[in-house]
Amino acid sequence: MNQETQSPRQVLINGQWRQASYQSTFQPTDPNHHQSIPISFPVSDWSDCDEALSAASVAAREMRALSSEKIADFLENYALKIEQTKDALVEAAYLETGLAKSPRLADVELPRTSNQLRAAAAACRTGSWALPTIDTKAGIRSCYESLGPICIFGPNNFPFAFGSVSGGDFAAAIAAGNPVIGKANSSHPETTRLFAELALQAAEETGMPKAVVQLIYRTSHSDGEKLVSDPRLGATGYTGSRHAGLALKAAADNAGKPIYLELSSVNPVVITPNALAERQEEIVNEFITSVLMGTGQFCTNPGLVLLIKDEKSDAFVQSVKERFATAAAGTLLSPGVASSLAANITELCGFGAELLVGGGDPEKDRCAFANTLLATSGKAFLSNPSGFQTEAFGNASLVVTADNVEELCEVIRNLEGNLTGCIYSHTDGSDDLDCENVAAELVTKVGRLLNDKMPTGVAVSPAMNHGGPYPATGHPGFTAVGIPASLLRFAKLTSYDNVRPNRLPDLLEDQNPRSAWRLIDGKWSSEPIAS
Amino acid sequence: MNQETQSPRQVLINGQWRQASYQSTFQPTDPNHHQSIPISFPVSDWSDCDEALSAASVAAREMRALSSEKIADFLENYALKIEQTKDALVEAAYLETGLAKSPRLADVELPRTSNQLRAAAAACRTGSWALPTIDTKAGIRSCYESLGPICIFGPNNFPFAFGSVSGGDFAAAIAAGNPVIGKANSSHPETTRLFAELALQAAEETGMPKAVVQLIYRTSHSDGEKLVSDPRLGATGYTGSRHAGLALKAAADNAGKPIYLELSSVNPVVITPNALAERQEEIVNEFITSVLMGTGQFCTNPGLVLLIKDEKSDAFVQSVKERFATAAAGTLLSPGVASSLAANITELCGFGAELLVGGGDPEKDRCAFANTLLATSGKAFLSNPSGFQTEAFGNASLVVTADNVEELCEVIRNLEGNLTGCIYSHTDGSDDLDCENVAAELVTKVGRLLNDKMPTGVAVSPAMNHGGPYPATGHPGFTAVGIPASLLRFAKLTSYDNVRPNRLPDLLEDQNPRSAWRLIDGKWSSEPIAS
Repeated sequence: MNQETQSPRQVLINGQWRQASYQSTFQPTDPNHHQSIPISFPVSDWSDCDEALSAASVAAREMRALSSEKIADFLENYALKIEQTKDALVEAAYLETGLAKSPRLADVELPRTSNQLRAAAAACRTGSWALPTIDTKAGIRSCYESLGPICIFGPNNFPFAFGSVSGGDFAAAIAAGNPVIGKANSSHPETTRLFAELALQAAEETGMPKAVVQLIYRTSHSDGEKLVSDPRLGATGYTGSRHAGLALKAAADNAGKPIYLELSSVNPVVITPNALAERQEEIVNEFITSVLMGTGQFCTNPGLVLLIKDEKSDAFVQSVKERFATAAAGTLLSPGVASSLAANITELCGFGAELLVGGGDPEKDRCAFANTLLATSGKAFLSNPSGFQTEAFGNASLVVTADNVEELCEVIRNLEGNLTGCIYSHTDGSDDLDCENVAAELVTKVGRLLNDKMPTGVAVSPAMNHGGPYPATGHPGFTAVGIPASLLRFAKLTSYDNVRPNRLPDLLEDQNPRSAWRLIDGKWSSEPIAS
Repeated sequence: MNQETQSPRQVLINGQWRQASYQSTFQPTDPNHHQSIPISFPVSDWSDCDEALSAASVAAREMRALSSEKIADFLENYALKIEQTKDALVEAAYLETGLAKSPRLADVELPRTSNQLRAAAAACRTGSWALPTIDTKAGIRSCYESLGPICIFGPNNFPFAFGSVSGGDFAAAIAAGNPVIGKANSSHPETTRLFAELALQAAEETGMPKAVVQLIYRTSHSDGEKLVSDPRLGATGYTGSRHAGLALKAAADNAGKPIYLELSSVNPVVITPNALAERQEEIVNEFITSVLMGTGQFCTNPGLVLLIKDEKSDAFVQSVKERFATAAAGTLLSPGVASSLAANITELCGFGAELLVGGGDPEKDRCAFANTLLATSGKAFLSNPSGFQTEAFGNASLVVTADNVEELCEVIRNLEGNLTGCIYSHTDGSDDLDCENVAAELVTKVGRLLNDKMPTGVAVSPAMNHGGPYPATGHPGFTAVGIPASLLRFAKLTSYDNVRPNRLPDLLEDQNPRSAWRLIDGKWSSEPIAS
């Protein structure tokens, strides 16, 4: 490892691994031992970004001329390489993130990642994602098309499945026909670098443009803002903290560049008294699993539990408190996550939340913090809704106990946008009326409404919405997970008006060579248009 | 009319026509006589906006509980009332805009308006617009749903078809299930008021919430910015000038509120030498019709013609110049349009554009400006691309003559986003190769690519994209015209995960009671799911 501490890792620009242009470097941390990993990574200057943007512009033009078949081949080749390199990827990610090798990294996240790439490849092949629309009478045809280079900022919590050059945004951007500039998450740069190596090999083997995938590790904040607002860029996908995300959003918005953000979310879970009367233990188990799994570091972690005050809610809270106290506290992703969690808990207590269990200082010999349960009343919540919605990212949750359904609904009316909202109720439907009122409020605040199920599973389903109203994301109409819908973020709508048949994109040709689903004169069909 | 000059027109808030809360008033202008119309309209204070927002929040909740059938009834009832009130609407709009009563207002724009409302009603009824998506195995279902109150700022140039309480944005917002707060365009407030009266009657007759449609005429700039960023608002639709639109965009972006803008566009038209050799006179005729129709006051007016220098291009320019000189200059919509046009022409000449015909001062006894043709070289354009893309809204166009196809392509690479781009070429395909290169550049810059056709016709087709890359609009993925796609702007994506069958929206029920087209397990179908 000695040599590696000397010279920092290379960036991938225009198909070449090369020395970055940089002034400073950083090292990731092994969270299991709370110590630096002796590999340094460059903080790229603007010139690296600039070169990447220019190379990506060329690649974008080249990709427009490629068949979807070839782009799909690239994604599939890459998926296979990821599976073949599983052990090294898992080792690297374990070292940098502390996430369990198995089942989490090796058996859950890695297959999810390669499967996402394959699903994206399949979407790319048929082109149905592009919602091809044909008006035969008016002679107008439209579809979504590639937008241009996409910059992707991956989060810390999914080094594979949301990785900047391997995850859902990457798969969607490439399948929609765009090159990607990946900005590694600083907590797992080596893992990201390994992915970029595989991606480059796959790109070379399948004849992709040189700059189909590029990688930088970190930039200054101002260069990041310059990057997302550059005229050469098509759009940005960002998953991460609200603070950094909103700074990038302001820059991109000001330049008229689309930016898709997946920011913070407390993911309210409503549990009715009847549900607790029917199956308290079952619900406690589901909640504990959901909130402590992965040390609570999921975008959809249930951080806010809404109850109605009675002896059953007291018993629920008591039971969760006991389980939190006895469950081992998992390892957190980084020292930053541990210190933020501690700070957020302190903040919530400052607003008047009662600390039922946990709290205190982060552990020193690894990145960890006690499982923490906080509580407050509906009334207190309503006196400071914004404060009590402070996200405590990690193994922590806040229980809000309302006096009645009306107060609970008022709490929901005061929520910001969230990714998810859940309602647990009695299976016999005896509290359906209350649930109807609760759901009517909750559904306007969330991207995904669940019944009798915790929110942490985010299935890669065409019907998934991993999105939601601001500030959970930057736009309520788009999802970051779920193929084909996630591709639409990285596309522009183009209408072909009276365009000659031989000049139409293949998706809009009468013959329908890709057997895409198309909306023809108001009806969806995968057939050709009879000549 | 005397009485009307005393007391300003009433605003429509929460189902009541009432005195506005205002400090000042304004009067529209009769552009045919360049004189004020003696009806005054209030500039509403924030308290009017505030009340409208609160009422709209209640209406939004009520509309979520209404059947799509009822909302469709409202739209159709309103469409009929518009047709029955044609004469009064046409009179009012003629007085305020100077647009021809016939065919323009009575026979083109009015039927387009009522037909749009009916098309929106049809989309609302089936719900296919909402892209219902069902994953039967995972138990997840999603669709687009109403977003909340929509604020609509209508433009000056289509008092009916883009009117804030009658046009395409209105139809889309209502059909997607949202109440509308209309902000009248100041150039035709009385026309807008008449529409609001009809809309209110239709709303009452069909049992809509009180605040389904509300109307204010004008606010201060700062109150406008407050309005589009208010937490109670769902989104904004704006069509108008770039300057005002970008100020609203900044405010809305900062609050995380979607805003759909249709701003300026110069709509490049490329005409190849072979096309001119084949059918110069025909193309001149099409161009003259397109650029002078409606006195050139279309969003898609061909304001930039791209030619390649040879004797045919000279002849084309000469012919257009002669036609411009002899054609009567139409009436412009307002004194503001006339003075802006004059200022923009002066600006373009300042950058070095040659004035071939027209220019000068606006007429004094009506709102009008000489038909104006400007010219410059590709080289000059490339020395100041931003300057030469100054939009001259009205009966004017700039011809850019490039030395060759490469230079022409370089001009296109330097274009900002536009609504449309056209390519005229020889019908025998002899210049297809050049066209391919041109199209490859042009398509990345425009929302709609046309062949052998001028851009001013914007068919209400499902395949229409009346949108385009920034700064033509605020987002490259949405269209303001074309049903059902235009509805998606005013909707949020919602996923129902494990939600009990009896709690699903009807669009996602197994039975498919509305026979909507749905993407079920990867296949589009309008059938129920077999139980």
